Amino acid sequence: MNADNCALARGLVSPSYVAQGAEALAKRQKLVKAVLSQRRLPQAGWDDATIELFIQEVALMDSNNFVDNVGVGEREARVACDLVARRHYRLAHGIGRSGDVGAEQPKAAGSSLLARLANLLVADALTRAGLADLGASTVLPLATGMALTLTLLALRPLRPAGARYVLWPRIDQKTCLKAIMSAGLEAVPLALALVGDELRTDLAALEAELRRLGPANVVAVVITTSCFAPRAADDIVAVARVCEAHDVGHVINNAYGVQSAALCKLVTAAWRRGRVDAVVQSTDKNFMVPVGGAVVAAGRRRPGLVAAVNKAYPGRASMAPLLDVLMTLLHWGAPGWAAALAAREQLFWYAQEALDAFATRHGERLLRTPGNPISLALTLDTLGSQVPPPVAFLGSMLFKRCVSGTRVVARGKAAVVAGHSFVGYGAHCDAYPHDYLTFAAALGTTRADVDAFVRRLEQCFAEFRARRASAGGAEG
Amino acid sequence: MNADNCALARGLVSPSYVAQGAEALAKRQKLVKAVLSQRRLPQAGWDDATIELFIQEVALMDSNNFVDNVGVGEREARVACDLVARRHYRLAHGIGRSGDVGAEQPKAAGSSLLARLANLLVADALTRAGLADLGASTVLPLATGMALTLTLLALRPLRPAGARYVLWPRIDQKTCLKAIMSAGLEAVPLALALVGDELRTDLAALEAELRRLGPANVVAVVITTSCFAPRAADDIVAVARVCEAHDVGHVINNAYGVQSAALCKLVTAAWRRGRVDAVVQSTDKNFMVPVGGAVVAAGRRRPGLVAAVNKAYPGRASMAPLLDVLMTLLHWGAPGWAAALAAREQLFWYAQEALDAFATRHGERLLRTPGNPISLALTLDTLGSQVPPPVAFLGSMLFKRCVSGTRVVARGKAAVVAGHSFVGYGAHCDAYPHDYLTFAAALGTTRADVDAFVRRLEQCFAEFRARRASAGGAEG
Amino acid sequence: MNADNCALARGLVSPSYVAQGAEALAKRQKLVKAVLSQRRLPQAGWDDATIELFIQEVALMDSNNFVDNVGVGEREARVACDLVARRHYRLAHGIGRSGDVGAEQPKAAGSSLLARLANLLVADALTRAGLADLGASTVLPLATGMALTLTLLALRPLRPAGARYVLWPRIDQKTCLKAIMSAGLEAVPLALALVGDELRTDLAALEAELRRLGPANVVAVVITTSCFAPRAADDIVAVARVCEAHDVGHVINNAYGVQSAALCKLVTAAWRRGRVDAVVQSTDKNFMVPVGGAVVAAGRRRPGLVAAVNKAYPGRASMAPLLDVLMTLLHWGAPGWAAALAAREQLFWYAQEALDAFATRHGERLLRTPGNPISLALTLDTLGSQVPPPVAFLGSMLFKRCVSGTRVVARGKAAVVAGHSFVGYGAHCDAYPHDYLTFAAALGTTRADVDAFVRRLEQCFAEFRARRASAGGAEG
Amino acid sequence: MNADNCALARGLVSPSYVAQGAEALAKRQKLVKAVLSQRRLPQAGWDDATIELFIQEVALMDSNNFVDNVGVGEREARVACDLVARRHYRLAHGIGRSGDVGAEQPKAAGSSLLARLANLLVADALTRAGLADLGASTVLPLATGMALTLTLLALRPLRPAGARYVLWPRIDQKTCLKAIMSAGLEAVPLALALVGDELRTDLAALEAELRRLGPANVVAVVITTSCFAPRAADDIVAVARVCEAHDVGHVINNAYGVQSAALCKLVTAAWRRGRVDAVVQSTDKNFMVPVGGAVVAAGRRRPGLVAAVNKAYPGRASMAPLLDVLMTLLHWGAPGWAAALAAREQLFWYAQEALDAFATRHGERLLRTPGNPISLALTLDTLGSQVPPPVAFLGSMLFKRCVSGTRVVARGKAAVVAGHSFVGYGAHCDAYPHDYLTFAAALGTTRADVDAFVRRLEQCFAEFRARRASAGGAEG
Repeated sequence: MNADNCALARGLVSPSYVAQGAEALAKRQKLVKAVLSQRRLPQAGWDDATIELFIQEVALMDSNNFVDNVGVGEREARVACDLVARRHYRLAHGIGRSGDVGAEQPKAAGSSLLARLANLLVADALTRAGLADLGASTVLPLATGMALTLTLLALRPLRPAGARYVLWPRIDQKTCLKAIMSAGLEAVPLALALVGDELRTDLAALEAELRRLGPANVVAVVITTSCFAPRAADDIVAVARVCEAHDVGHVINNAYGVQSAALCKLVTAAWRRGRVDAVVQSTDKNFMVPVGGAVVAAGRRRPGLVAAVNKAYPGRASMAPLLDVLMTLLHWGAPGWAAALAAREQLFWYAQEALDAFATRHGERLLRTPGNPISLALTLDTLGSQVPPPVAFLGSMLFKRCVSGTRVVARGKAAVVAGHSFVGYGAHCDAYPHDYLTFAAALGTTRADVDAFVRRLEQCFAEFRARRASAGGAEG
Repeated sequence: MNADNCALARGLVSPSYVAQGAEALAKRQKLVKAVLSQRRLPQAGWDDATIELFIQEVALMDSNNFVDNVGVGEREARVACDLVARRHYRLAHGIGRSGDVGAEQPKAAGSSLLARLANLLVADALTRAGLADLGASTVLPLATGMALTLTLLALRPLRPAGARYVLWPRIDQKTCLKAIMSAGLEAVPLALALVGDELRTDLAALEAELRRLGPANVVAVVITTSCFAPRAADDIVAVARVCEAHDVGHVINNAYGVQSAALCKLVTAAWRRGRVDAVVQSTDKNFMVPVGGAVVAAGRRRPGLVAAVNKAYPGRASMAPLLDVLMTLLHWGAPGWAAALAAREQLFWYAQEALDAFATRHGERLLRTPGNPISLALTLDTLGSQVPPPVAFLGSMLFKRCVSGTRVVARGKAAVVAGHSFVGYGAHCDAYPHDYLTFAAALGTTRADVDAFVRRLEQCFAEFRARRASAGGAEG
Repeated sequence: MNADNCALARGLVSPSYVAQGAEALAKRQKLVKAVLSQRRLPQAGWDDATIELFIQEVALMDSNNFVDNVGVGEREARVACDLVARRHYRLAHGIGRSGDVGAEQPKAAGSSLLARLANLLVADALTRAGLADLGASTVLPLATGMALTLTLLALRPLRPAGARYVLWPRIDQKTCLKAIMSAGLEAVPLALALVGDELRTDLAALEAELRRLGPANVVAVVITTSCFAPRAADDIVAVARVCEAHDVGHVINNAYGVQSAALCKLVTAAWRRGRVDAVVQSTDKNFMVPVGGAVVAAGRRRPGLVAAVNKAYPGRASMAPLLDVLMTLLHWGAPGWAAALAAREQLFWYAQEALDAFATRHGERLLRTPGNPISLALTLDTLGSQVPPPVAFLGSMLFKRCVSGTRVVARGKAAVVAGHSFVGYGAHCDAYPHDYLTFAAALGTTRADVDAFVRRLEQCFAEFRARRASAGGAEG
Repeated sequence: MNADNCALARGLVSPSYVAQGAEALAKRQKLVKAVLSQRRLPQAGWDDATIELFIQEVALMDSNNFVDNVGVGEREARVACDLVARRHYRLAHGIGRSGDVGAEQPKAAGSSLLARLANLLVADALTRAGLADLGASTVLPLATGMALTLTLLALRPLRPAGARYVLWPRIDQKTCLKAIMSAGLEAVPLALALVGDELRTDLAALEAELRRLGPANVVAVVITTSCFAPRAADDIVAVARVCEAHDVGHVINNAYGVQSAALCKLVTAAWRRGRVDAVVQSTDKNFMVPVGGAVVAAGRRRPGLVAAVNKAYPGRASMAPLLDVLMTLLHWGAPGWAAALAAREQLFWYAQEALDAFATRHGERLLRTPGNPISLALTLDTLGSQVPPPVAFLGSMLFKRCVSGTRVVARGKAAVVAGHSFVGYGAHCDAYPHDYLTFAAALGTTRADVDAFVRRLEQCFAEFRARRASAGGAEG
């Protein structure tokens, strides 16, 4: 319904009513205009109608949707199943070109525009979350781990010829280690330091290892921000300074760290004061979209690796993860995004209190982990013993009660990951002094979730103790 | 509406009518049963209602959709924007786990089931297309090129320590070369042999180069099947034999080759008679889904690399490309898939005749390229001259007339790709004796497309000559 | 994406690609323009993307969808359930105003526009189907029968004060009789004349009855065109002449007659040569939409009752049936509508041949009913006897085999409908000389339907005879 | 995914995960079970996934959706346009049969089930809103006015032969008067009594008129509950007693009265203590669905007219309005419905305070109308004068500011509606002593609406006075 068509509509419906309707349409177009011109989150979240209309219309700018297109190439974005076409709004060309996943496509002006917007709005969202002085960023349709691999692959040619080591403060989650291995590099795990309840980066050990291996042989130090308590975020700023001093690469696995203002502040400080080549984060965990995307970002002082990462992705890629983020950010707008972040910060304190109270009631303790702004850990000291069931059984009790995401970490588990042997696996160190259970105050978690969790945990504790008692009785 | 609820419905609507309705529902469940038990394409394509109902119901088996789930982890598949949730049928957990993109997820029985089915049906579809003796295959949410990179990354640790070369019969398309480079490997381009109009693998050169570099230093030979005429598919079987003889890896870029029975036959022969480590193909080009996925397959004699590739992808990945393929294969069923393939084969001959006739009318010639079952090339000898416009201008004339996918290849273009310099770029050889235009008879192309293409080409030829004449007149 | 926004997009994507995309959007707007300016079916059917975009955009012209609307009335078209809003494209104001269901609404320019278009395109579709010299028509969200009632209610005040009779050539289907009764009028059934196999209007009886009751006491003659064989369409033209001569109203129940060129021709002739006040038809049966709408039409010589009908509907009404028809007509366009009609005509002959052959094989006969261009009747003489099962049992055998829509009419059934007693009910006359089964060649029926029907009928005949034989054997 | 298929899924995904998923599915089936067995609003509102799955599955119980149906009738619910089929969840058979719009359909078990449920849940919702002792109710796909017409048509045959009058306490809204006229009856308007600011039923006049016309000549008294202030709801209970005493019909136009607990209480009292034949209400205004449906209800003492109304609707009808209500009530559940009603009651008081404050600021007054629990009226005494613009202009100022639903009622308007002449039209009486503006606290109105309304009204008042001043200046 462009101006011409609104004029024609005046022949069918009273001009004054049409005029008011046309004005309403113009207001929607202005919402689009604001985003296209400011290239930032809209000042108010868009309603569904505006989002859909915008995407559907832009999709019609792709050649596969031209009324009179004739495609005689090997890839013409034809879609056989109508349901599939519909769920992608008839966007089928993907993003990028064979040389660069960030490049625009001649056949797909619409897809190219949406991909560009997705990247621009994500950059704005990162900035608003606290990643100041952002230099460059790109959204990739890859898992965080795979994005780490690609980042390391893009970084390697920029390092001295023989460089092959990646220094890696231990974190007991498989992804990062496998990402390093998949890149054909050699991970060098560094033990953490236990300070009070908390596990922290051992900077002295890092520097020692750097010297031992020789910085020229090191591709990068890969550290982790967001992680399960009682591990703290690595000492981002200090590591950045070390990397700058030794002139080695520095990649930050910030998987779900965007949602924490504290972590964003540290990352910002790090790329201002030291060397940071790339910060990698997930789209699903930070933007509440389905699993599938990652964002690689860098600060203003050293933005170059982001473009290299884009160029390292050979071929066209799925647009779905970018579109999901774009739709979500339009839906939220600046206030929605700010509100989601603020709600999470508040939830963290709410959960801390609730779990603290729980701990007090049960003779347990919330571990003191001030360096972890997202995850909390609750000791399970009163459950551990030689009598069955083992502490780990609490995990399956919770699983059966539809509690997901919590982890029971019992001492003494051994594991081999990507060729590396670990003891005390799960606890990020060889011998953590407690069994414990973790809880995450993640984006989207609600107070109702916390309350229900505590309620079910109560039930599980009671049932666990009853089983223990009856087993003890049977034994005794 | 399970049996209980149908029984209750009998209290509201006549039992005999409800009985007939319940029977109709049971028939739909049997369609699902057939696929779950046979793990093959359904005997008849499913209608939209069955596809949607199945996926929606299975999606409710994921924990994020449980009515009473309490998520307290860092990744609970919460989706902020309802439009996003809807387009993914509320599937948000993605596929795989941190250690293996093919692994199932405890939190997501539904997603895991759909991912498994997607893989099983794709394997069946490959077999039906002619890839007999299939040993293993996996669908990855990656571009073909990125899948090639990942395949090479997974292959490398299986090769001798210092191996770093990839032998690569030249093809003038950036993806493959960049894929090799992104994997941190060194591509060694091999010139093709011109036989008649056709460009073919130079086996002697390949063997010579293998000997020169030493097989232990070679990670793999990477060849290409589907490509633009006048390049032929590489000599798949012969290369497989060479690789077996020299014990080097062999990866086949079969980007859009599944759609050709001839290419499938050759790949099958190759992995039966020689060494093939992996065959990589695109989902969008072969299954008419939006860009975003690739299939890595291997024959029965050497299936191992496929699992290694799955393990090399660190982290959870987007499910969208798998779901698209699954929906499409259910939509087609065995007969629909067979029909799509058959239609393409017929279209190839139809196009050949139509272009032949065009060529005859205009004093041009369809290049003889029996080794390319998908692409055709038409000489542009009568257009080339010193007088403007240049031959390449024909391309933009076609673009403006909404013809996409055709390429005008004019002689003498130089290019640097991934650090390698090429002359005659676009023509796959330094000095091809003709300017030409390519056409692809790809899956989904219709006779109406061919007819419209020929019609618009006629117009462009006429207009091109008119411009040339007026330019010539101006000059003369 | 108006011109302003396309211009802004040039800052994000190459101007030449954006230009091509913008041109593609402009082409879609031109499709809309053509319909708005010509007010006829589009020259080619619209694709789904165009239909959706158009309706979604127009829906945003309704006040309930204004970004900044403040509604403080009792009816502000707020929709509580998002799923409901979505399925109606957020159109919630319905059609009409309290005084006139055809009136436009100040609050809903979009809905008003769509309703107007629906009416205009339906008028065009009627004309194209063969209803020439159409004077006025309106689409109502009412069943055909309810539309008949409303038509009679609107007609009555235009007739002399005491008029209360409706003359009605018998048709054994409840709707029409109930429609007359619901309007508070008194139906006077007229027996049909049996001519050969066919039941036809008895004009002499009609005139006699008119004279007996006195034309001033008669509101209208209500006749039927589309009906089950062996009843023929009433003699439309002759009745129109009689009504003109006697100056009584004439309403035609043309329920599914639009789909027959022959019936349309007769209706046209009737309103050209005699008196026709209104012709009522169903939207679902003639336009393949869900049940819910009717069209009241009139010829150029006497168009006035249509407006009176609109005015007789008090209050705003559901827009759904109009929107369904509009979407369908845009989807078909002129060629799709023509093709659907042509396919039906061909199917009629195809079915006739197939059933004729069946009849010959089984010693039955297709009744000769040249006056019925839609329905066919097959004798069941060889099945009838005193031995069980009764002929009617064939009907439930077909029902169980998922054959719907066929009717087995056995002799001798009595029924009371709307206070009138009938014998031989179902056969439109007291004593039709055959049992028979009906078949309709309706819009959308396919050759595959006919073939499957004949196949299942064969099975049922065989099974029926087997049961009869075994029952006979048991008896004998 | 019935039990069989879940069992098969165990061969593809870990049994324990499948088991948890299957349990989740079972929980959804239990939600359905609860509604089917209790036939009341669910205890908690359903989420979108459950609603959609339920309706889609039930839709597959209709014969047009059977995988192997062969339709050879004239009405087989084929849908030509896929978009249309989708938006109706492939439900195409409508509701009812030719004899009864409440009857079930052999071809459509699913539609029949949904229609039954819609009726049952609406009955429950009415009861919960306060209509106690409900005897019968039916949801019709008709405007409230048309439902009134049908109700009167169904009532008339139950009244003495010559009865033709309908007594009707005046309300200045066209629908009701037209509804009476469309039914072929004669409306006898009764003037209201002005008591304080409020317009009330003049019972003495009603009885006088009844006696004058003779009760046997009166079909019914039709009164109105929900209306614009300063008119009060008619005196429902007293009229019911009068009708019982005189043995005449009594139909209540309760268009948007369900949302008011006070009105529901009065209706209940009326049908307990006096005669009420039918109460007619709109679905859109009371249940926040798109325009299109009405509910006809009756109390336990005299439930019979409801069935007669169903039988008076000849033919199958649109299912859309029933489905919309069903979906909405499932979406709300009992708590959602209760919350919506409670919010409205609170809003009424909020608005009253806000408008009162506005009035005080501007020298106006909120009219005292305790008998109207939904609408409020604000005097415009300070705006009226001989100087332009006229008071009515305030209405278009508000319209241009996107305020909809408010009415400016200026004195002295004459109108002819359905043949009746009125003076003071809009004010429900010949000479109301104030100009005024109405506001409705309707279901779904929010505090934000009230605040925005007051804000814009402030602006309009200011602007109005400025124009008046400048006009006055110009004049002076």
